[in-house]
Amino acid sequence: MPKKVLIVGGVAGGAGTAARLRRLDETVEIIMFERGGYISFANCGLPYYISGVINERDKLLVQTEEAMEERFSIDIRLHSEVTAIHRDTREVEVVSSGQTYRESYDYLVLSPGASPIIPSIPGINREGIYTLRNMADVDQLKALVTEKKPRRAVIIGGGYIGIEMAENLKHLGTDVTIVEAAGQIMGPLDVEMARVVEKTLMDKGIEIILNDGVKSFDGQGNIEVALSSGRKVEADIVLLAVGVKPENRLARNAGLAIGERGGIKVDDCLRTSDPYIYALGDAIEVKDIVNGQPALIPLAGPANKQARIVADNIAGRKVEFKGSQGTSIIKVFDLTAAATGNNEKMLQLKGTPYAKSYTISPSHAAYYPGAIPMIVKIIFSPEGGTLFGAQIVGKDGVDKRIDVLATAVRMGLTVYDLEELELAYAPPYSSAKDPVNMAGFTAANILKGDVRVMHWEELDNLLEDSYILLDVRTDKERQQGYVEGSVHIPVDSLRKRLNELPRDKRIIIYCKIGLRGYIAYRILVQNGFDAVNLSGGYDIYQALLY
Amino acid sequence: MPKKVLIVGGVAGGAGTAARLRRLDETVEIIMFERGGYISFANCGLPYYISGVINERDKLLVQTEEAMEERFSIDIRLHSEVTAIHRDTREVEVVSSGQTYRESYDYLVLSPGASPIIPSIPGINREGIYTLRNMADVDQLKALVTEKKPRRAVIIGGGYIGIEMAENLKHLGTDVTIVEAAGQIMGPLDVEMARVVEKTLMDKGIEIILNDGVKSFDGQGNIEVALSSGRKVEADIVLLAVGVKPENRLARNAGLAIGERGGIKVDDCLRTSDPYIYALGDAIEVKDIVNGQPALIPLAGPANKQARIVADNIAGRKVEFKGSQGTSIIKVFDLTAAATGNNEKMLQLKGTPYAKSYTISPSHAAYYPGAIPMIVKIIFSPEGGTLFGAQIVGKDGVDKRIDVLATAVRMGLTVYDLEELELAYAPPYSSAKDPVNMAGFTAANILKGDVRVMHWEELDNLLEDSYILLDVRTDKERQQGYVEGSVHIPVDSLRKRLNELPRDKRIIIYCKIGLRGYIAYRILVQNGFDAVNLSGGYDIYQALLY
Ligand SMILES: Cc1cc2nc3c(=O)[nH]c(=O)nc-3n(C[C@H](O)[C@H](O)[C@H](O)COP(=O)(O)OP(=O)(O)OC[C@H]3O[C@@H](n4cnc5c(N)ncnc54)[C@H](O)[C@@H]3O)c2cc1C
Ligand SMILES: Cc1cc2nc3c(=O)[nH]c(=O)nc-3n(C[C@H](O)[C@H](O)[C@H](O)COP(=O)(O)OP(=O)(O)OC[C@H]3O[C@@H](n4cnc5c(N)ncnc54)[C@H](O)[C@@H]3O)c2cc1C
Ligand SMILES: CC(C)(COP(=O)(O)OP(=O)(O)OC[C@H]1O[C@@H](n2cnc3c(N)ncnc32)[C@H](O)[C@@H]1OP(=O)(O)O)[C@@H](O)C(=O)NCCC(=O)NCCS
Ligand SMILES: CC(C)(COP(=O)(O)OP(=O)(O)OC[C@H]1O[C@@H](n2cnc3c(N)ncnc32)[C@H](O)[C@@H]1OP(=O)(O)O)[C@@H](O)C(=O)NCCC(=O)NCCS
Repeated sequence: MPKKVLIVGGVAGGAGTAARLRRLDETVEIIMFERGGYISFANCGLPYYISGVINERDKLLVQTEEAMEERFSIDIRLHSEVTAIHRDTREVEVVSSGQTYRESYDYLVLSPGASPIIPSIPGINREGIYTLRNMADVDQLKALVTEKKPRRAVIIGGGYIGIEMAENLKHLGTDVTIVEAAGQIMGPLDVEMARVVEKTLMDKGIEIILNDGVKSFDGQGNIEVALSSGRKVEADIVLLAVGVKPENRLARNAGLAIGERGGIKVDDCLRTSDPYIYALGDAIEVKDIVNGQPALIPLAGPANKQARIVADNIAGRKVEFKGSQGTSIIKVFDLTAAATGNNEKMLQLKGTPYAKSYTISPSHAAYYPGAIPMIVKIIFSPEGGTLFGAQIVGKDGVDKRIDVLATAVRMGLTVYDLEELELAYAPPYSSAKDPVNMAGFTAANILKGDVRVMHWEELDNLLEDSYILLDVRTDKERQQGYVEGSVHIPVDSLRKRLNELPRDKRIIIYCKIGLRGYIAYRILVQNGFDAVNLSGGYDIYQALLY
Repeated sequence: MPKKVLIVGGVAGGAGTAARLRRLDETVEIIMFERGGYISFANCGLPYYISGVINERDKLLVQTEEAMEERFSIDIRLHSEVTAIHRDTREVEVVSSGQTYRESYDYLVLSPGASPIIPSIPGINREGIYTLRNMADVDQLKALVTEKKPRRAVIIGGGYIGIEMAENLKHLGTDVTIVEAAGQIMGPLDVEMARVVEKTLMDKGIEIILNDGVKSFDGQGNIEVALSSGRKVEADIVLLAVGVKPENRLARNAGLAIGERGGIKVDDCLRTSDPYIYALGDAIEVKDIVNGQPALIPLAGPANKQARIVADNIAGRKVEFKGSQGTSIIKVFDLTAAATGNNEKMLQLKGTPYAKSYTISPSHAAYYPGAIPMIVKIIFSPEGGTLFGAQIVGKDGVDKRIDVLATAVRMGLTVYDLEELELAYAPPYSSAKDPVNMAGFTAANILKGDVRVMHWEELDNLLEDSYILLDVRTDKERQQGYVEGSVHIPVDSLRKRLNELPRDKRIIIYCKIGLRGYIAYRILVQNGFDAVNLSGGYDIYQALLY
């Protein structure tokens, strides 16, 4: 008797499992249930279709029901919601066109995804407030922007979807305000990196309101978004994008174990607490490979990889999912911001000791046209130098460096390994010392004690008269702005002017990006001074200020 | 007494060593000898200055003598050639402005680089034949193209420098012919990958002559390049770019050990056979980290990294250079070609068993505008799947994937590791399954026996009637061209038409890129057929043909 496998959810996790399972086994009976009207759509493309950057709706349909049935011989049931699991009889209950029926299984796969969080705010149910998850949502929004051409949009939540929507609505000429309850947008980044993204958004004419939540949605016709601060923002349309939560209802009602973060609990083979039921994608809790803790990582890359693993296990192979690291990236107009692994906020929460280093490197050889600096932040173990995470903001070449660093994080590499990576260099692509190498050099220097660094935020905790701030940039750079109270000796005349510096105070050095500060540090320390270099230099200082 | 260190050569390796050594030790006396008139110039940028893509000569001077002296307190001696090493007294002999003098050292560093190979061909010394290595060369060539505007250039040698010069001369409106003695240009690539580059060059109007060498340079005024085949090509200017050889004369004359490839022999700490003499850069032989054999890898990335290591060792730290892998990349008009690790030619030469796999993936999500396919070739151990090397040609995003693969090669990762890499995905940057993941999936499937692949070149060795060729592409694709003698059943109707296929012959499947061929393979084999999938599909077939 061939196996019978039921799959709940027909997009990244579900359709991926179905396709791989069919490749592995021609005989297994596969039925895929999808509550909505489409399988295999490009969730990640939805914001770009709204603006017309993706200009045809069909492009969003990576695979249609008919094509998938033909190629993979899958029984696909659209508009069919699985409403209950009867684990004792190994059956599910399906509601379709008002009919309810049962379908039996040998194995059940749950890939129901995650749903937008809808906070219970007064007025939340009124017209004009949207979320964006699927084709139905996008059709509604597309019709709205096409027909009504909203003048003012308020986006609640400054995460990936909120920011992508901000950009795409702005393309359409809509005035956009992002309201974010936290002190920064872009949770995966730490605050100083997020500041760069915020600045870009503001430069593009998007208003950002931080540290403020929505109290209520009021008004007639147009929506008046009333904030906790007392402020009110008018909108023709509101997009709720305050995050997603695992769709765990089906699993929970069936008594399957649910993890501490609310995701369906699975073992290393992605099996739930019931050995006949697998789960994957946005709905599950995975192991964060950096800190070993359960995490919710609602991203398409992991979902697609998990799909292959679930199919393998059902086909009788024992394959494990080792965990996830949350590598993510976003285009913000001409800026790219990306992150992988753990950020400072996460490490602080867990009480994990860490060190960090900033470097600012050109996207390719500075002497070849078009080189644009990117800020690279790496976070690593102060002991062995194992990489915990990385964040980059810049324009060109950010995606390349985050992928190399993501590979490094995944493989448990250290900052010393980054020093040695032999990456491809020709002038249009990189420098002989790639930004990733540079990050490695700088971090290794810190760990080896060749330089002592400080971070701008630490300045606040120092007594004003315990140190002096030394600016080692050129006269020209100095003229364009400097930190109040700093003394100025360009690095190239430092050796000659050592007598101008105090020997009883700590000298906190800064330059533009940290490089010349490091050279100055080496000169000072070898001449008996007590010095420290500000990591990332004036550029990070300015990012923090903006 | 402070140490006294002499450095021969003032560019990548030499200047890099000097800078790092100064940072490590303020007291050491450093004298850097440079035969030419410039230190720290951007060798790699030279071709782009000739065309004006790099529009200012000054941009090529990454660091000037004065600036370097000021910042690093280095005694820089231009136009000073080191002509001999007296190891017994630890002195070098220096010739400068016709004067000869000696300078003593505690440590000597050799970074003299590699010089263009000048084959002994009749007429080689006549006017109008150039090489490109340094500022003097570039000044001469720049003057020539500016004043004389050569109409026809012949470039001897289809390596990196030859191709970059071809592109840049073409930009200036010069007709360019590349003459290459081997059967392909671009040695680091295997032939089928090189074909794509050749095709691009020809599409851009550059003539390529393969399998032909220069017999003599004749003619009056203009140069008549006479080839072994009997063919003659007229040129106003000839660029010799047939490779470089390590500058080992100084070392050889001093009795230092020279390796089998002609490079200066060094140990893991980059020390020559004399413990007081270090050597680095293009002049040395390094260990190929893939095959452990000595190799010449004249690239700027390794030279710069070795510089730090030499300085560290002289400063008393024991640091090893683990070896090199020859990661390289080139822009060829709008194409990018890149390679890392060992190619097939190298593995065949060494008799190392290997497997290979081709995948063709879009640079980013196919549904987002601007996605362009790239061909990814990976070569790996047929046993454990350890990656031996990778080659990619495409347009966008080639540099990113080669860097991830270079990291994988360096760290000894397997194709199974590539399957798991969690790379950054948003539609403008990649796909949920990145091209690197796809390469991993496909290779892992081969190793696990889930698919049996064949390569186009193997077809030649099969008996015509031992197999049938099955085209599983769509009707539309078929109409646009197919392999002579193939039968046609689109993959999506395969299950229904199995009875049309023979059970006594091997079925060799092809589609466009290999993906649908793999799906067809799974269907056929599970239905009892003997099948094999052509890796890389029709696209690789066409690349091989062009
Ligand atoms: C606007 C947007 C942009 C995004 N951008 C990115 C990006 O750039 N990069 C990235 O990595 N990720 C991105 N994501 C996230 C990515 O799409 C998800 O991580 C991925 O789709 C998760 O796959 P899944 O199978 O778990 O869930 P989904 O793809 O959401 O599929 C779940 C499906 O299950 C169906 N379903 C649920 N319950 C039932 C039921 N009981 N019965 C029947 N059917 C059911 C749902 O209708 C849904 O279609 C984005 C998501 C959105 C919404
Ligand atoms: C046109 C061109 C393009 C290139 N493009 C790339 C690229 O895209 N990517 C890449 O990775 N690499 C590229 N390279 C190679 C790269 O430039 C070299 O690998 C790197 O410069 C090697 O550094 P080095 O210190 O060993 O030698 P060099 O940089 O060549 O420096 C050696 C110096 O030593 C001097 N010298 C030699 N002998 C003596 C002596 N006896 N006394 C005093 N001085 C001496 C020479 O005058 C020379 O200036 C390119 C090279 C060229 C020429
Ligand atoms: C469309 C969909 C059903 C396709 O599933 P799929 O067939 O597993 O995936 P792909 O088309 O990417 O093909 C990958 C398979 O082809 C193989 N393959 C890829 N290129 C190949 C080549 N050149 N030669 C041979 N095999 C190749 C891979 O090995 C893999 O097979 P495997 O999993 O058995 O190892 C699924 O990806 C989907 O629903 N996607 C849209 C939804 C989504 O992901 N949304 C979130 C992102 S927007
Ligand atoms: C110009 C040249 C002398 C510079 O040498 P250098 O000072 O060692 O190199 P860089 O300017 O790249 O700086 C790298 C140093 O700054 C440090 N650094 C870089 N960014 C930093 C930052 N933000 N904060 C602190 N330190 C930083 C690095 O750690 C490294 O120091 P280390 O080696 O002591 O660890 C040398 O690279 C050269 O001659 N280049 C031109 C020739 C050439 O390479 N040609 C071939 C390619 S075209």
